[in-house]
Formats: sequence, C-alpha cells, structure tokens
Amino acid sequence: MHKKLFIPGPVEVKDDVLKMMAKPMIGHRTKEASKLQRDISEKLMKLFYTENQIILSTTSGSGLMESAIRSCTRKRAAVFAVGAFGKRWYEMAIANNVPADLYEVEWGTPTTKESVDEVLATGKYDVVTVTHNETSTGVMNPVDEIGEVVKKYPDVVFLVDAVSSAGGAKIEVDKCGIDVCITSTQKALGLPPGLAICTASEKAIEAARQVEHRGFYLDLVKLYDTIKKKDHQYPSTPSLSHMFALDYKLDKILEEGLDNRFNRHAEMAKYVRNWANEYFELLPDERYASNTLTNIKNTREISVGELNKALGERGFMISNGYGKLKEKTFRIAHMADTTLEEVKELLENIEDILKL
Amino acid sequence: MHKKLFIPGPVEVKDDVLKMMAKPMIGHRTKEASKLQRDISEKLMKLFYTENQIILSTTSGSGLMESAIRSCTRKRAAVFAVGAFGKRWYEMAIANNVPADLYEVEWGTPTTKESVDEVLATGKYDVVTVTHNETSTGVMNPVDEIGEVVKKYPDVVFLVDAVSSAGGAKIEVDKCGIDVCITSTQKALGLPPGLAICTASEKAIEAARQVEHRGFYLDLVKLYDTIKKKDHQYPSTPSLSHMFALDYKLDKILEEGLDNRFNRHAEMAKYVRNWANEYFELLPDERYASNTLTNIKNTREISVGELNKALGERGFMISNGYGKLKEKTFRIAHMADTTLEEVKELLENIEDILKL
Repeated sequence: MHKKLFIPGPVEVKDDVLKMMAKPMIGHRTKEASKLQRDISEKLMKLFYTENQIILSTTSGSGLMESAIRSCTRKRAAVFAVGAFGKRWYEMAIANNVPADLYEVEWGTPTTKESVDEVLATGKYDVVTVTHNETSTGVMNPVDEIGEVVKKYPDVVFLVDAVSSAGGAKIEVDKCGIDVCITSTQKALGLPPGLAICTASEKAIEAARQVEHRGFYLDLVKLYDTIKKKDHQYPSTPSLSHMFALDYKLDKILEEGLDNRFNRHAEMAKYVRNWANEYFELLPDERYASNTLTNIKNTREISVGELNKALGERGFMISNGYGKLKEKTFRIAHMADTTLEEVKELLENIEDILKL
Repeated sequence: MHKKLFIPGPVEVKDDVLKMMAKPMIGHRTKEASKLQRDISEKLMKLFYTENQIILSTTSGSGLMESAIRSCTRKRAAVFAVGAFGKRWYEMAIANNVPADLYEVEWGTPTTKESVDEVLATGKYDVVTVTHNETSTGVMNPVDEIGEVVKKYPDVVFLVDAVSSAGGAKIEVDKCGIDVCITSTQKALGLPPGLAICTASEKAIEAARQVEHRGFYLDLVKLYDTIKKKDHQYPSTPSLSHMFALDYKLDKILEEGLDNRFNRHAEMAKYVRNWANEYFELLPDERYASNTLTNIKNTREISVGELNKALGERGFMISNGYGKLKEKTFRIAHMADTTLEEVKELLENIEDILKL
C-alpha cells in the first residue's frame, strides 16, 4: 500500500507532475534544452522575488549548499545553526578546508539578527550562512530581519538554506539581500528528489571568482558562466526528467498563486500547532515555528516508532525526531500540495490510534 | 516531432522504462528504499563482473569522476587522456588542488599499456585514470591490458571512466583490477540522465581514508560508509525516480543477457564502421574503435549542421564533432536499446540526404 507522505521530503507528488518525469528524452545541447532552462528560470525568479540568476544542479540540496560555501568563502565563514542541517554547512566547510566557525543555539530557538550582527561586527567573516527552515527542530528563522543586518557588511556574502521552505513560505531574495538562496525539488515545491536550485547574485559570483579551488562539478562560477555563455545550458548533462517536471509544476504553482500557496501552508501549520498544543507541546518557540513542518515534543512518552507503524497500516507516514531527538519528538510535514483536509485526516487518525 | 537520438547521451529511453520514472514517492529512510538500493547493487555487480561495493550518486558521471580522483589521490594522479573527457579528469584534479599530470595522445589513438607502464614505473603516482570509451574521438581503450600493467603497482588506485560504455561493452571490473569504475544512466544503460554509478574496491576506500579533504557531497568514503552502516542508504536524498527506473531496467538488461547485449552493440558498431569506411573515413584507429559510438571524418566536407537539420526533419538526431572537431567529424552513437534495424534506417536517411 502506498503511504501518503507527511515527512519533510520526499513529499507526495501529484500524478500529473509524475507523468512529466516520464517524458521522452531530448538532446541537452539543443535549443529545446536551452528554452527549458530559460522558462524554468523565469518562473523561479518570480517564486524567489529576484532578478538574480537561477542555477540548477543535478544533486540534492546539499550539493548546492556545499557549492555555495566552498565557492564564496575567501576569508572565513560564519555558520549559524539552529539544528542538524544548519550544522551541515559547517561540516561542508571543514571537509573542504574552508575556514569556518560554528554558532549554535539551543534546538528549538532561532538565529537572531542581534547574534548575526555581533558576530559579523568582528570583521572576521566574508560569508554568513543561515538556515531559513530547519527540519530537525521545526524552526523558521527570520531571514528578512537577518538580511537587514547583513546589509551593513558589504563584503559579506549571505547564503540561505531554503531547502525545506521555498515554495511553501515567502522568501523575498532581493529584498532580503540574499546572495545565494538554495532549495531542492522534493520539499515544498512538490516534485521528486534529484534536482537542486539556487539563486546567485553577481556579488556571490564575483566573490567566488577570487577563490582558487572551487572544485569542478559543484563550482558555482562554472555553472553560472556556462549558463551565461552557452545559452542557458550546463557543463554536465542535467536531469532532464526533473527539468520537464519542474517546468510544468512551476506553472501549476503560479496558477495557484504564490500568496494563496503560502497562505495554505500557514493555515495547515496553524492547525497542526493548535493540535500539538492541545495534546502535546511544540518543540520550537512558537513565534519562530515553521510553516512547512511542525516538530512536536513527545510529552506523552508514546512510542513514535509504533505510532508510525500503525499509521503506515492506514496509509500515512510521519517522521520520528531527528538524530538526538528520536522518540523525544515527532515531526509532521505539511508542505507542497498537502491540503488542510489531508492534515485533518492524518491528525484524526493519530488521535484514533493514540486514543486521545 | 520527437527526434530519435543517435547522440552519445541522452539516449532513447523505452516507454516502459520512462513509466518507472513516474512511480509515486517513498521515504528515503525506509526499508523499502534500502531494498531498492540493495537490489540495484546486486544487479549492477553482475553487469560489472565485480564483488566490489556499488555506489550511486545523484549527479552526472562527472560527479563521481571528481569524487574518485579527489578522494583517492594521496600523492599524485597520472591522467591518461585520449580526448576531451579524459582531459576532464585532469581539470577536476587541478580544480581541487590535487597534484596530477596529464598524458595526452593524438586524438584517435588509444592509451597503451606500454605508456601506462612507463609512467607508473617512475614511482611518482598513486592514482591512474583511464577513459574506457572516449566519445569525443570514438576510441575504446584496452582497459583489460592496461589493468594487467597497473597490477604491477600495488599502491596505485586504478580509476576508469566507463560513462559511455558500461552496459554496452563488457568490462570485467575485478578481472581488470579496476578500483573505481564509473558510469551514468543516460548512455549505454538506456535511462534518463540524473544518476551516476560506480564500483568501489576496498583498496580505493582505504586510500581515500588517508586523504584529509575529500569534500562532502562527493566524498567517496562518506557514500561508502553510509551504505555500509545505514543499511544501504545515502547521506543525502537520492533521486528515487532514477532508482525505480534503474532497478527495472537492470532486470530487462539481464533478461536480454549481457553477452547478447554486448554482441548487439558490437554488431551495430561493425555495421556503422563499414558504412563509414565506404563513404567517409573513421577518425579512430579501427583496432580501437568504440562499440558504442562511431566518430567519422568529414572527408566529403559536408555541412554537418545542415545534415543534422535535415535529419531532424525526418525525426533523427546525430552529433557534430566535439569541440575542436566540430564540422571536421560527425558522430553516430549506437548504444543502449538501439537496434541494427534502426541504425540501418538512420544510415539510409543520411545516404538519401547526402545523395551518396
């Protein structure tokens, strides 16, 4: 039996979108392929509220995160982590011999503009990384407020992990001054995994040009320059199937309307948070709770594994707590094309299983 | 109109395989996902005639090539190039500050066991890279003979780019002593682009453990260890759609029979070579001509661009010469599920257009 996915990616993908994954192949050095990349870019520029270049990478979101921190750090990167995926930026820097410092907070609390300001004021850094939406904790950071602070430091390149939020929450890239904003297909955009997406400012690319060893496959400059010089093509063969599906899906997203889509996510999140407050507790500070995923403290000491097994028999799947939070929390994703009705159905099933 | 692809990837993908790209999503941390990776691995071990670990990477073939040369080079890499893709190994090394030397030959000639022996005898190298099948020239190198020579140097890790040949020509990984043999889905395997595949020997992984900075997303050790420790799962979310299709397609390949499949490729190659010798000339030394792609010298000084345009109107696509060989050669790929009948039909159309 297929299980309806309420996990933070892969998400449920609609049948019409899946069908686009099955389109016949075309040459990746053809005008048709250039047009596909151009069309996708124009639609993604709307979604990200940006005039910056859109870059696709046939990797998971991690691929472009590594690409950004390795390519753009000339001096030293300040990594602000509010959970496991924030910390991943730091691991990526260290694995590439890129100088970086990690600034962590207690899981469930956000990155504040004050902390970013204090750290950048030291003058030690030329890159700052922030997680917009952290799925290990369910925190959504105020990237707009943080962006205002980063603007005070003109040499600092601002990298944002929006892997689990872009398409489900409004991120105004240009207004926030985000230099590289990264996401991937299998989260709030509602596509299968296999393709990463970022916006790249000229400032980010110029910074990267000063870095000598940026690697090959994940070199942000190589990706950028090839798109510019080779009529919107890529250095290597991209996942055309994902591009067909993404192009189609972006039309559907724009048809729904970005504000409608973000509001639907906010409404689902509010419903799940109210439910969590009634029967359990929220892990994150509610003022910074995510609109795409809710992380719930297991205050009743249920077996999350058993709950998920019982849900599986009814055709649903949620997520256990991440890493050190396994069995201590459980996570319900409400992203992409999930509806409030489906969320209600899931929660009713949980109530029924747990006899709440 | 859809154009039937006779280009060296992406190739034509059969409808039943395309349909598998449209399967509904599953969680990538489930037993179902582990089983999928395990099943794929077992089938690929047959295709590569190996007991080594199979590793998948959501990248193009270039991703795993970079992964291998960066991860495994402790001292210095000897890169043997017979064309543009061979040279790419060298560009990857340089882009990662990995010490490497490039050994090039005239385009159309192969890498010989004697040249490899001579270079390795210097004792300067602990990695050697060889292209099995070079699509820029149409040369297929004798990796079995080269492998015999590499075995004389027990510290040397043997990396082979089989991106455009695996699944279309026999490569006995263990017998040849290949430590990392790399391919990707969109060539002779007959799938859409978006997933890379390699075999990894324990020797390669142990060598890589001695390298301090291997990066994150393309770290061969991280990929290997996660598969071993986490029940055949991956550090990041893989392209499940490609995995569904690959699992299915490998069944079809094994049903066809590996020898039958390799013979079909040999037969198509022989036919195209004979045709080329009749009307044009072969670029490569015929003793080393590829079984998956034929590179033909444009001795009649036709416009390859115009020929391809005329073919396009009839529903076919071939490739122009690569890079510096543009208009000087043209290339016909005969790989994956292409049949001799389809090759004949293409060549008849070329004869008709060129009035041969």
